[in-house]
Parts: sequence; C-alpha cells; structure tokens
Amino acid sequence: MSDVIGGDATLADLPLREDLRGRSPYGAPQIDVPVRLNTNENPFPPPQELVDDVTTSVREVAASLHRYPDRDATVLREDLAAYLTGATGVTLSAANVWAANGSNEVLQQLLQVFGGPDRTALGFEPSYSMHPILSAGTRTEWLSSPRRADFSLDGPEAARQVAERRPDVVFVTSPNNPTGQSVDPGDLRAILEAAPGVVIVDEAYVEFSARPSAVTLIEEFPNKLIVSRTMSKAFAFAGGRLGYLAAAPAVIEALLLVRLPYHLSVITQAAARAALRHAKTTLGSVQALADERERVVRGLRERGFTPVPSDANFVLFGRFADAHRAWERYLDCDVLIRDSGIAEHLRVTIGTPEENDVFLTASDQVSEEIYR
Amino acid sequence: MSDVIGGDATLADLPLREDLRGRSPYGAPQIDVPVRLNTNENPFPPPQELVDDVTTSVREVAASLHRYPDRDATVLREDLAAYLTGATGVTLSAANVWAANGSNEVLQQLLQVFGGPDRTALGFEPSYSMHPILSAGTRTEWLSSPRRADFSLDGPEAARQVAERRPDVVFVTSPNNPTGQSVDPGDLRAILEAAPGVVIVDEAYVEFSARPSAVTLIEEFPNKLIVSRTMSKAFAFAGGRLGYLAAAPAVIEALLLVRLPYHLSVITQAAARAALRHAKTTLGSVQALADERERVVRGLRERGFTPVPSDANFVLFGRFADAHRAWERYLDCDVLIRDSGIAEHLRVTIGTPEENDVFLTASDQVSEEIYR
Repeated sequence: MSDVIGGDATLADLPLREDLRGRSPYGAPQIDVPVRLNTNENPFPPPQELVDDVTTSVREVAASLHRYPDRDATVLREDLAAYLTGATGVTLSAANVWAANGSNEVLQQLLQVFGGPDRTALGFEPSYSMHPILSAGTRTEWLSSPRRADFSLDGPEAARQVAERRPDVVFVTSPNNPTGQSVDPGDLRAILEAAPGVVIVDEAYVEFSARPSAVTLIEEFPNKLIVSRTMSKAFAFAGGRLGYLAAAPAVIEALLLVRLPYHLSVITQAAARAALRHAKTTLGSVQALADERERVVRGLRERGFTPVPSDANFVLFGRFADAHRAWERYLDCDVLIRDSGIAEHLRVTIGTPEENDVFLTASDQVSEEIYR
Repeated sequence: MSDVIGGDATLADLPLREDLRGRSPYGAPQIDVPVRLNTNENPFPPPQELVDDVTTSVREVAASLHRYPDRDATVLREDLAAYLTGATGVTLSAANVWAANGSNEVLQQLLQVFGGPDRTALGFEPSYSMHPILSAGTRTEWLSSPRRADFSLDGPEAARQVAERRPDVVFVTSPNNPTGQSVDPGDLRAILEAAPGVVIVDEAYVEFSARPSAVTLIEEFPNKLIVSRTMSKAFAFAGGRLGYLAAAPAVIEALLLVRLPYHLSVITQAAARAALRHAKTTLGSVQALADERERVVRGLRERGFTPVPSDANFVLFGRFADAHRAWERYLDCDVLIRDSGIAEHLRVTIGTPEENDVFLTASDQVSEEIYR
C-alpha cells in the first residue's frame, strides 16, 4: 500500500477521456548536463541591466499583489506593439496585439476561437510538435501535409492542399522548427489566398532570420492572417513565459471571449515590459548566434554530417543510421541535444561559442554514427 | 476607413466558432473608484517583508530568465503541499499537488481531462460563474442544478440529482461564491458517493471558513475527489496568479497530459514560494476580515437589508426591486460592488474597516432601493 495519500489509485482507475489513455506528457527531457542545446533557448544570460530592471519593476508591483492585474494587459500590449512597429515597419497599436503565458497559450486560445470540434487544423510537417498537441487538446482534427524530402515547403503544393482540404486553421511555422527554413513570401501569399479560414504564421524564431515578417501582410489579409511570436528565444526570456501575436483588432476581440480572466499576472506584465526596454541589448546576441550557426553548419559539414539550411538558432542535421543512439552518444559527451523524432536526424540549438566547441568536439566521435 | 492596421475587419467577418458569436467577455467592470469591493480581493496590501522576499527571490531567478522554468514546478508544489498539510492535518506531498496560473487554469485543465465533448459538468447554482464558462470553453455540456431559495445546498436533493443525471464532473463550491455558505461534510460525502465521475470542490474561500477542508476526504475517495484552491483571496496574491489543487497522485499524472509545457514562469514559481513563506502574516488578516464580515452583516440588517449568511470574505445581500439600479447607486457613492446577476441581490467584498464604513454609509442611502 502506498504511503502517499491516494497513492493506490492509478491513472487507469480515473474516468479520464479515452483519447488521453496511453499518452505521455509533452516535453524534452530536463537533464542537468554541462551543455544543454536542446530547447532553442538563447544561451546568453540576461544582461545585468535587465536583471536590475526586472527586479525594480517587480518590487514596484509587489506592493499591490493583493489586487488582480489589468485583465487586458493594455500597457504591455502597447509596448509589444511599439517593438513590433520598430521591427517590421508596420505601424501597430495595442488593439493589434495580444499576449499570454507563452505562445502555446496564445495558440491554444486561437484554436478555442477558430478550431474545436468539427473543425480542422492543417500543418506542414515535420514542424512544431505542439501544433497537433494543442489541436488535440482543443478537440480540433489535425490534418498533416508533408514538406519536401529536404524539409523545405513546396509552396504551390501547400496552397493546393489548403484549397482542397479546406482547413479552418492553417499553421505555417517560419522559420520552421525543427527544420530551420523560412517560408517564401510568395508561397505564404498563395496559402493565404487559398485558405478558407485563418492562417497562423508561427514566428517564434523570426528574429534570427533575414526574411521580412508576415506582419507586413496583415493589412492585406485582416480576416485571415495571425502572426504569433514569443519572447522565449531571441529575447532570452524563456523563463518569463511571454508569447504574443499581431493581427487585426477583431481577432483580439475574439480572443477576449475565450481567454481566462486575469491570465497574465501583474508580475509577468511588469517583467516582460522591463525585458522589452532592453530589447536592443538582448537582441544584440542575434547576429552573434547567426554567425555561430554558420560556423556550426560548416563544422558539421567538415565532419561528414548533412546539416539542413537554417534561418533560426538551431540546426537539424543527419544522417544517422540510428538517431536515438546518436543522441545518447552526445549525452555521453555531456551534450544534451534534441531528438525530434525525425528519422535519421537530430536538432542542435546554437549555444555560446564555448558550448558549440564542445558540441563540435563531441561530433568528432558521434560522426561514427553517420549513415553511409 | 480605420487608421488601425486591419481595423476595418469586424468580429462578424471572422470565421470564429458559431457558439462564440454574440457573447461578451467575462469579467467584472474594472473601474477606478476609491472603494473597490467587487472582486473578493484581500483589502490588506502584502506586508513589507513579503514584498522584500518576492523582490529578492525574483532577482535571484532573473539571472536565468533565458532558460525555461522547471516544467513540473516541483519545489513550489512541495511548498504548497507543506502548507496544505499544516492547514488541513492531512499529510500531502508534491505528488498530491498541482499548480497553474490561477485556479481558472487549474479548472480548465481538469475539464480538458475529465470533461470535453460528449461529457457533462454539473453545478449547483447560483455559483461561481466561471464554472459554466470553462465548461463551454472545453465543450463540456453544462448541467445546472438549483440551490434552495435561501441559496443553501439541499444535500440529499443534490446527491439525488447527481445519481440521476450522472455528470462526468460535479462542481461543489465551498464556501459558495457568490452566496457564501459552505457545504455540509455529510452532504459532500453523499454527493461523492453518488457521483459516477469526479467531484471538484472549489475551495477558493476556504481559509475564511471554520469548516474542515474537503482535503480530509481525498484518502477515502482518491478516484473522485479533487480540491481546488487559490492564493488570490486569503493569501492576498490575486496579482500573482497562483491556483492549485490537491488530489490523488494519479490526478496530477493525468493533468500532465493536457497542461501546456512550461505553463508556470520561473518568476511566478519564485514569487509564489516567497508568498507562502509569509503565509502566517498574510493569513493573519483572515480573522480580522471574518470579524468585519460580521460587523457588515449586522450593519446591513440594521438598515433593513437581508444579508445571506457567509463563511467567506464577501456577503450577498438584498433584496432590491432593481439590483442593477442599486449597484449604480453604490457606484455614485464611489463604492464599486458586484452585480452577479442574481435577482434582487448584490455582493459586497469585505474590505478594510474604513472601506466597510464607507460602504455602510452608502448603504444608508441605497436602502431606499430595498424591495418592500
């Protein structure tokens, strides 16, 4: 008998939904090794000026912790709109912006509005694996459409699939995770024209890319286009959990119908605003990471690996006879990377120059696993 | 033409779910008046020692904001388990506890596991209005069962309804919001015995009540009973957004299947732990608020109102010929209270002694609106 209260009851004893039975929780292994290059975090810690500003901002709002936060996070949304305006050249206001606890919550809310039972969501796979998981969580039927063998998006074929299968929601991840390529603007336009419902462009890694943001197309497709973003990657704010989106104001009005009231804590709002004030400094790491990415790609090629061209802060590479075995060999070398479940491939996040050196040195050994 | 990007598109132009059309966002009006007694917050600001501890704790974790938080919030859950063990006398561990961004997120996750399409949730109304809203958001059919005319729960009738209607999820709010009464332990046991699915006891206001917590029944009903809680009320942490629950470990395993990965920021985890370290101080306000509640109830009775007996930090009172008109008259006196949509009644949160004095003075005037 278990000595934990209720510990004798098992998952099988619970009246949970049938479709959840046998499933495993989402998430990369959280293993404490010296070099963690598995979750596409920015490897550079926040600068001291940001730490100080977050601290001061939190102290200020902590005095009113007994009160609920601004339910609409208006001031934070104004700041996000100002950042996006500067980054994209498109003049956005708070009415165009929504924020939540990570872009996963943003995407879940969008699926609650535009997906759900008797509706479908389509993605071009392999892509961000949370898209089908969030669809399942909101009871939206998932439609998978393949990318080319080299993981690039076949634009005309993608538009044809959208026109034919008529999904209520289309996901376009650009740059695509875990493969790294951005969508071509002409291809995105063709998909938007073909889509009968909404198109969510997931730009979690867009700051690492030289391509223009899909935000530039919102004015042309206000009823269709939603661009989601995150502060987890380039902003070095993964621990702060702040996802956001840009769209027509009507989309934000629709999200108000499904969002949990007071979903963003007063502390999250204050900390995110502080982080935005130091955007120039944190985003200063972007070019260094892009340079390191090219160095890692070269290093992998020199060692006989096949890296996939990437616009993001990670590189998918292969080809392995047994990708999981190769993943374990990196772990034996104290380097944690990601097995995304793509045959013959693994994904490595670009770290600090020192971390990338350790990774490349480990790759000397793991190159034995290359499929020949 | 609108000068906001995409501003010409309207909600009607969007392909949103049909059941969302015509709906309004949930939430009490956020009006900035001198005396706000509308959202059941603790009126006493956090003590300086708590503000300092939150600040220090956030400074500490801010240096690693570039990293994702502990996905399972294990240390915070240990602290919550320790608090619950002390408060209820039931020895709980982290395996018995789950936490999320406010109890609304906890309840939404529970409905994703145990509710959903083709499933039903039943509540005894009037009660917390988010229960049916969260049910709708997760596509769970809502079954309403009435309380007695005096808003108390008819235990045997409640158990009979549960046995007959066989809901997958039963909500029992104790103390009940917005009416104030706690469930009788014998009645709760009868409901648990009758329930074919899970029973969620929503104890958001339990610290204000002298009744034993439902946590004492988890060992007996491990496959059925889930007790949800919040730090928003007695803990004076509404702005920090921390809801939690206690249940058998299998329930927590089930929640891992639907939770968004990294749903709790490293800052929220640190700030909530700091707030828990000062539980004794913040919960010290509970007795003062209970005393004030009795003073407000007496004051209302003396003025000819009919207050409903309350175990919580609010009082439902009437009876008004036109409750909304009475609400407006309080607002004219700079006192914001809550119109919960219950005919002839309004709800007032217990504030500081000074705020309650202002409320009672305003009540002198508003007593003209009493139904005679």
